[in-house]
Amino acid sequence: MSGSTFGNLFRITTWGESHGAGIGVVIDGCPAGLPLDVSHIQAFLDRRKPGQSRYTTKRQESDQVEILSGTFEGRTTGTPISLLVRNQDQRSRDYGNIASVYRPGHADYTYTQKYGFRDYRGGGRSSGRETIGRTAGGAVASLILKELGIHTTAFSKAIGPVEVPESEYRFDEISQNTLYMPNNERAKDAASYLDSMMKKLDSCGGAIECMINGLPAGLGEPVFEKLDACLAKAILSIGAVKAIEFGEGRNAALLNGSQNNDAFFMHGNAVQKKTNHAGGILGGMSDGDTLVFRAFVKPTPSIAQPQQTVTENGEDTELTIHGRHDPVIVPRAVVVVESMAAITVADLLLQNMGSRMEYLKKIYHD
Amino acid sequence: MSGSTFGNLFRITTWGESHGAGIGVVIDGCPAGLPLDVSHIQAFLDRRKPGQSRYTTKRQESDQVEILSGTFEGRTTGTPISLLVRNQDQRSRDYGNIASVYRPGHADYTYTQKYGFRDYRGGGRSSGRETIGRTAGGAVASLILKELGIHTTAFSKAIGPVEVPESEYRFDEISQNTLYMPNNERAKDAASYLDSMMKKLDSCGGAIECMINGLPAGLGEPVFEKLDACLAKAILSIGAVKAIEFGEGRNAALLNGSQNNDAFFMHGNAVQKKTNHAGGILGGMSDGDTLVFRAFVKPTPSIAQPQQTVTENGEDTELTIHGRHDPVIVPRAVVVVESMAAITVADLLLQNMGSRMEYLKKIYHD
Amino acid sequence: MSGSTFGNLFRITTWGESHGAGIGVVIDGCPAGLPLDVSHIQAFLDRRKPGQSRYTTKRQESDQVEILSGTFEGRTTGTPISLLVRNQDQRSRDYGNIASVYRPGHADYTYTQKYGFRDYRGGGRSSGRETIGRTAGGAVASLILKELGIHTTAFSKAIGPVEVPESEYRFDEISQNTLYMPNNERAKDAASYLDSMMKKLDSCGGAIECMINGLPAGLGEPVFEKLDACLAKAILSIGAVKAIEFGEGRNAALLNGSQNNDAFFMHGNAVQKKTNHAGGILGGMSDGDTLVFRAFVKPTPSIAQPQQTVTENGEDTELTIHGRHDPVIVPRAVVVVESMAAITVADLLLQNMGSRMEYLKKIYHD
Amino acid sequence: MSGSTFGNLFRITTWGESHGAGIGVVIDGCPAGLPLDVSHIQAFLDRRKPGQSRYTTKRQESDQVEILSGTFEGRTTGTPISLLVRNQDQRSRDYGNIASVYRPGHADYTYTQKYGFRDYRGGGRSSGRETIGRTAGGAVASLILKELGIHTTAFSKAIGPVEVPESEYRFDEISQNTLYMPNNERAKDAASYLDSMMKKLDSCGGAIECMINGLPAGLGEPVFEKLDACLAKAILSIGAVKAIEFGEGRNAALLNGSQNNDAFFMHGNAVQKKTNHAGGILGGMSDGDTLVFRAFVKPTPSIAQPQQTVTENGEDTELTIHGRHDPVIVPRAVVVVESMAAITVADLLLQNMGSRMEYLKKIYHD
Repeated sequence: MSGSTFGNLFRITTWGESHGAGIGVVIDGCPAGLPLDVSHIQAFLDRRKPGQSRYTTKRQESDQVEILSGTFEGRTTGTPISLLVRNQDQRSRDYGNIASVYRPGHADYTYTQKYGFRDYRGGGRSSGRETIGRTAGGAVASLILKELGIHTTAFSKAIGPVEVPESEYRFDEISQNTLYMPNNERAKDAASYLDSMMKKLDSCGGAIECMINGLPAGLGEPVFEKLDACLAKAILSIGAVKAIEFGEGRNAALLNGSQNNDAFFMHGNAVQKKTNHAGGILGGMSDGDTLVFRAFVKPTPSIAQPQQTVTENGEDTELTIHGRHDPVIVPRAVVVVESMAAITVADLLLQNMGSRMEYLKKIYHD
Repeated sequence: MSGSTFGNLFRITTWGESHGAGIGVVIDGCPAGLPLDVSHIQAFLDRRKPGQSRYTTKRQESDQVEILSGTFEGRTTGTPISLLVRNQDQRSRDYGNIASVYRPGHADYTYTQKYGFRDYRGGGRSSGRETIGRTAGGAVASLILKELGIHTTAFSKAIGPVEVPESEYRFDEISQNTLYMPNNERAKDAASYLDSMMKKLDSCGGAIECMINGLPAGLGEPVFEKLDACLAKAILSIGAVKAIEFGEGRNAALLNGSQNNDAFFMHGNAVQKKTNHAGGILGGMSDGDTLVFRAFVKPTPSIAQPQQTVTENGEDTELTIHGRHDPVIVPRAVVVVESMAAITVADLLLQNMGSRMEYLKKIYHD
Repeated sequence: MSGSTFGNLFRITTWGESHGAGIGVVIDGCPAGLPLDVSHIQAFLDRRKPGQSRYTTKRQESDQVEILSGTFEGRTTGTPISLLVRNQDQRSRDYGNIASVYRPGHADYTYTQKYGFRDYRGGGRSSGRETIGRTAGGAVASLILKELGIHTTAFSKAIGPVEVPESEYRFDEISQNTLYMPNNERAKDAASYLDSMMKKLDSCGGAIECMINGLPAGLGEPVFEKLDACLAKAILSIGAVKAIEFGEGRNAALLNGSQNNDAFFMHGNAVQKKTNHAGGILGGMSDGDTLVFRAFVKPTPSIAQPQQTVTENGEDTELTIHGRHDPVIVPRAVVVVESMAAITVADLLLQNMGSRMEYLKKIYHD
Repeated sequence: MSGSTFGNLFRITTWGESHGAGIGVVIDGCPAGLPLDVSHIQAFLDRRKPGQSRYTTKRQESDQVEILSGTFEGRTTGTPISLLVRNQDQRSRDYGNIASVYRPGHADYTYTQKYGFRDYRGGGRSSGRETIGRTAGGAVASLILKELGIHTTAFSKAIGPVEVPESEYRFDEISQNTLYMPNNERAKDAASYLDSMMKKLDSCGGAIECMINGLPAGLGEPVFEKLDACLAKAILSIGAVKAIEFGEGRNAALLNGSQNNDAFFMHGNAVQKKTNHAGGILGGMSDGDTLVFRAFVKPTPSIAQPQQTVTENGEDTELTIHGRHDPVIVPRAVVVVESMAAITVADLLLQNMGSRMEYLKKIYHD
């Protein structure tokens, strides 16, 4: 069915293929009166566009975004915000040789099985460029959160074997290195590892961590629209993400209850937790603590080594993918993860407004 | 908003609290003409009900299910199937002492923050008994899959430190031990570990693995309703699940592209993969291979040790939870994971029917 | 797909057949803290149950409702409210003779075409008893509206040729006659008309008018979730309703703009309209004036006269329906129309809460 | 909430304001393999664009549509189809004088009440130009229907007092007169009536009839997604529509059951009805007969006569709207009604595919 729409009240609908006319998103349900400038959206897009480092595709794309609707005199009007990014590089040359072959680790085969044929130009809809729509939507969502004192931070937790332990997090350094790692030294190690990968015509994976501060307690709708459930769907819908964990996550399975439970205590008039193994989520709702999750990303499937595969006509063949591709997806996916998280939280903030009769009276009686 | 409905076309709506009149589910969108007998649903419920082993709560519940609507002469009619399980044990005694205290690791605090107050009897809606509705829905979904040659298997992959390596899987043994592990020997080890936990008044977590065979290629809707994204939401919506991974999952982040890519080859007329690092999903759609995912479950938060917490009135206090509780959630959650997976797949099977014009012609022209 | 759920945030899911075990509804998304007593729901159900007048079926049903979940200590908890009404009269005798014949004006033929077969007992899911779930849901929705100063009134505007002109409305008399007309004299005329219909073994239709007072301006979501669009769907989803109009409605098509436009003027600090041809809706949103719509109901299709029809095996035949049936649907449908209107408005009240950033700040900052 | 999306499986999301950068629609869920040429969409848009007759606004708009995504080599790919129409006439001159005044019969007041302020340029999102997105979506939906042998016809049934009785329908003449009436003679009468309206600086309303042939029986989902309920929402969501009726519609309320019931009979092997009072819908599902409904349209609210109203600052004032406006909305709304009907039917065709287990087996086993 229609899988290109995400969210219930704050809702994005994305469209566009790698080598079509462009990529875009329609953001519906954005509250009216939010100051919105195109430069804020552009800043988000610039974080994912190619050419930010020597570890990204050579494809030339300025990814300039245009606001087509939904704002008036610098503020959102409550009507749908349509955003458009024209594709500039529409050469199909690099992709011609794979029109009739299924690339291992890609969606070529499954798209063909689902729809009967596929737009093979650059992966069509399954291209990484699809995330432009998500990122533009996330830029707007993040503004809503900011107005409410909620802040989202995402970064490269690990690139290949190079991981930044929590003890070494330096958040101010995230924007200082092109790999978006919270530690410049580790970023250098990761960079040299990526150089070695490129020499070997190979690629690697990694992990992205996202933290959300300032969340009010009680976000998330029992029982199927839990905060973690919604975030899991949002993040797993990003191509190449193969796993997600919240707080202690996978490690919680190895702890005992006495270790994993977070003790409550009073800090002044505020209820707080001594630890945060829960990652800021209890019973599927935010508990007021920092929300923490990690997404694990598979290595870039496009590698320049010869690979065994089959043709659409059912013959075994060997494929060598030409053209330069990112040796790792993680750095450019950081802003996408942050965007999907912001969209999910914005949607749940709106949904939560009807949770109490007293809230209805506040809006309709005061 | 309304978080108690899951699915788009095959859709379940669950309701009920731990100590209310009962628990139930309404299954809507089930195709007409499916043979359905109450005994099949009961068999699913029996897999999760208390008293199956000495590692479960002493609470007495027969969990007898009644079909209230949606079937006629042994077949589904296409109208909503309403299923009801009456609660028998409605004593609030065991829970009286926690009416005004937030249990660590539970949803007491977040429910109160969201709704202004809470039904404290046995955790109310956040009780494990909520999963009865999911399981009954999963029983019906699994029948649809079976008719189409799709089979779902779930089991306890790990309980505390006791894990069953893939090389030791013996699927016929899953139903032979009360812990639902695919290896009776390992199950014995796990049992003695659980005994030690109970002696220590502590609990542990573990992992559940689910495999789905016989899936046609192409299930899952790009880009937000991907098969893995929908499954992630379904599984993370189960209380106590803190992480999920598909195929190589988290480990894929440490592999290189040349290792992680699954090579295609022809097996007769069929396209197959030499390996299955992808876990049966490419680009968010089933690739015809076995779908594999693992859910990681936190330790039971209800432990008999004294724990520090706070009261609803904002005073620090110490809490000791009385009454016996499962030292591990994993075994009883196995059928819940299998059920949510079956519901998700059934829903996507229906959604996929409109993916090609030729399918519409098959239904409306033939 | 799953057509048994109505609403986005305030959402009802109904289930049950005429001669199954019972009829019910799950109400999800009801704000927490709403005082709810079963007697209020029962009062709504009593308005539609058989035996209220000599113009209704002889079928004996007490239609006693049970609250199965969602309330605690007399208030809603924010979790799904499950309501159950057991069917008492499950005799299939009266219906045996129509098991293999399509009743004219009924859904027998279309259900069989859609699902391949049907539950022929009393029309199964297409029976008027299906509206029990809607009415129970409407009872809860009306409580939410009442707390916000919104009042819904519905009544029989016309029964057969007997219509009550606006000039003769006496709202206090609606509950004084069993036909729910706003004028006891006209109700007597309608009663004698119904007597003549029963003598002729025939039936008649009529019209129901609904008025909603106290609505805040701005309810309804442009462009597809307009207030009138949502109400139209809600009301047309009631069996036997064949038309709906808002304000001047059909008559507006015969007016000129200079006649139909409602002039604005200031009444103290309030913006008001000199007339209400619009029926309280401008651009699909409430304008603060009284919302007015009329639903037109077809005559009861079950008549005791011989009718020509066909059998399931494709033979022409003559059918005479036995058992007593209401000669008119209108009076018992009044509370159903009111209920669907209340549910629609409650849902849009919740949806509207996120329309302005200032509303979000009111909830999350104050 | 997000009100700019319509449909469940075949889904359109529209965006754009009268004097913004443009208007557009994203069509998601369109089956793959549908031949789609931009000229077909342009032809639909040309039926509603200004300048088709002397009875439409002088505004110059070529309304050229561009396909931005979702097609490859002339066929739909199953991915979202994004369509863009740039606004050419963005002068705000004609509208400057109403920036601070609420136009009677328009949405100025309700938009301001809902969102706190409004885009006053040409009515912003409430402008008739919003229907461009619907019409483009309808063009694609109509292609799906055509492939399945389903044909939709809409026309002006009445303009002011000039109505075409069914006995005088000449369908081939609909496209021969600029008012889209099924009778050229009546169209001449209507034209002179419109001339008189323009002289009087006044406007009028009318009625649009829509017929759908070739529908399979069983479309529509009980109980809330009935075919007529879904169509009612679709049509009432069009600005200026104030009423809808199906088959006998409002008149059915004045008939007796013996008159209104449609007798079934066998025609060869086919079940048919002797009459079609039902308008092709029984129990909310298509019965295989011609589907017939009528929409009633209010007179154009923009008239050049002085009207009493109020300013945003709460002062009484008199308003005279300058610039030429259509004296009647009906002719240009014909294609919009046809489009919304086609979209609704396409969506229900997809939803219905999962109604029987045998259909699933046809797709997944054959």
